[in-house]
Amino acid sequence: VHLPITSRDNQWFRRFREAAAAHRDEIVLEGPKQIRDAIAAGWLPIAVAVEEQSEQAAGVSATEVTFAHSLFRALSDTVHSQGVLALFHRPSSRLLDLFSGAGLVVALDAVQDPGNVGTICRLAAAFGAAGVALTEGCADPFAPKAIRASAGAILRIGVVRTTRRELIAAASERRVPIFAAASSGDSDRPVPVSPAVLVLGSEGEGVSQEILDHSEQIAIATAGTIESLNVGSAAAILLARWFEQRRG
Amino acid sequence: VHLPITSRDNQWFRRFREAAAAHRDEIVLEGPKQIRDAIAAGWLPIAVAVEEQSEQAAGVSATEVTFAHSLFRALSDTVHSQGVLALFHRPSSRLLDLFSGAGLVVALDAVQDPGNVGTICRLAAAFGAAGVALTEGCADPFAPKAIRASAGAILRIGVVRTTRRELIAAASERRVPIFAAASSGDSDRPVPVSPAVLVLGSEGEGVSQEILDHSEQIAIATAGTIESLNVGSAAAILLARWFEQRRG
Repeated sequence: VHLPITSRDNQWFRRFREAAAAHRDEIVLEGPKQIRDAIAAGWLPIAVAVEEQSEQAAGVSATEVTFAHSLFRALSDTVHSQGVLALFHRPSSRLLDLFSGAGLVVALDAVQDPGNVGTICRLAAAFGAAGVALTEGCADPFAPKAIRASAGAILRIGVVRTTRRELIAAASERRVPIFAAASSGDSDRPVPVSPAVLVLGSEGEGVSQEILDHSEQIAIATAGTIESLNVGSAAAILLARWFEQRRG
Repeated sequence: VHLPITSRDNQWFRRFREAAAAHRDEIVLEGPKQIRDAIAAGWLPIAVAVEEQSEQAAGVSATEVTFAHSLFRALSDTVHSQGVLALFHRPSSRLLDLFSGAGLVVALDAVQDPGNVGTICRLAAAFGAAGVALTEGCADPFAPKAIRASAGAILRIGVVRTTRRELIAAASERRVPIFAAASSGDSDRPVPVSPAVLVLGSEGEGVSQEILDHSEQIAIATAGTIESLNVGSAAAILLARWFEQRRG
């Protein structure tokens, strides 16, 4: 019989808590489906945590710890986790990996909402983009809310935290054009099927001037009654359009 | 000097609380921008509530009440409301109004997440749809989270709660074809520019069989690595495609 851990000083509790909150080298996945998907995608769990009296069997060959209810709930709500969490190393892709396949690199410029980051990672995976690059000021793509919004897609595509400067340099070095979604852009210009970077900005600010200075701007035509689209909606429309053109 | 209301038995407190929680005949809008937008769109406030010591001046000709902090926070968080709320009559459009303009009626079938409902109302407004019809089981479009996700668009387009049965009857009576987004559909079929209903279903269940039985199905082609798109993403792609065709 496992006695549940009840102390907030316990090393595992502290490690899970830090991973869930601090966005550092380890991340926490919630619930049996996310954990199974990650393992299926080749990830190796460091440890699995089960809530006291939960009926979850982790079924994973990793260190297993049992937390008392109060501790478990400090890490995750029961609805999302269904009584099981797992600790993983944060995946580390490099920016140049995204450019290696001559596909479309989706870049997010200071998109702060983790739900939007997750939604766009899901779209990037659905439409076969090469991966997602996140500049300064973006939400952590491995925050629980972002992973949920990605419906697990984030576990299967390359996601890289970078800077505007590195992104511009990487594209320039490989002569890959940058396209920025901006309401002042040309709404009839498609994202080219050849290698390209597609940048989406934050809802309030749009794409930063630093990136606009190195980009061609594309817009989405609307009926003109609303100022702007949600960044997730804009990504959906531009990625679907790119995918259709690629299919020919 | 206004003395702030401190009693939870106060009639105004109870009325705001019921409107915020119970999804009945009155609704609550949060924050100066939402309230200004609603008034600009022709809505008349019943009353305005200000948080004690808030620097908000409502600037609206309606009954004004001041709530103590604790009461105000029971109605809305301070971040979203910025210290001011207003009570309005729930707008009442009729299903037949949506069909009167020979445009595109967007219908949501049991879409439970208020964020998705709001996002799709925003898209419907952005692309000039005739309005949004919600079947049984949809989230309340005038819940605070839905209004926020709509970025206020919900205040400017017709939104109607209806039933699958009424929707099918209204379309059939006017010989307006129904198109349902479904992964088994034809990914090359566009939504026609002539009057039509476009139905999007819940993420888990898709469009109900009852509606599918009266619909042609359209799908969105993807790279095939992910099971489905978020319903907000699907709506963005199909509405943008419809709008582009209409522009010609």
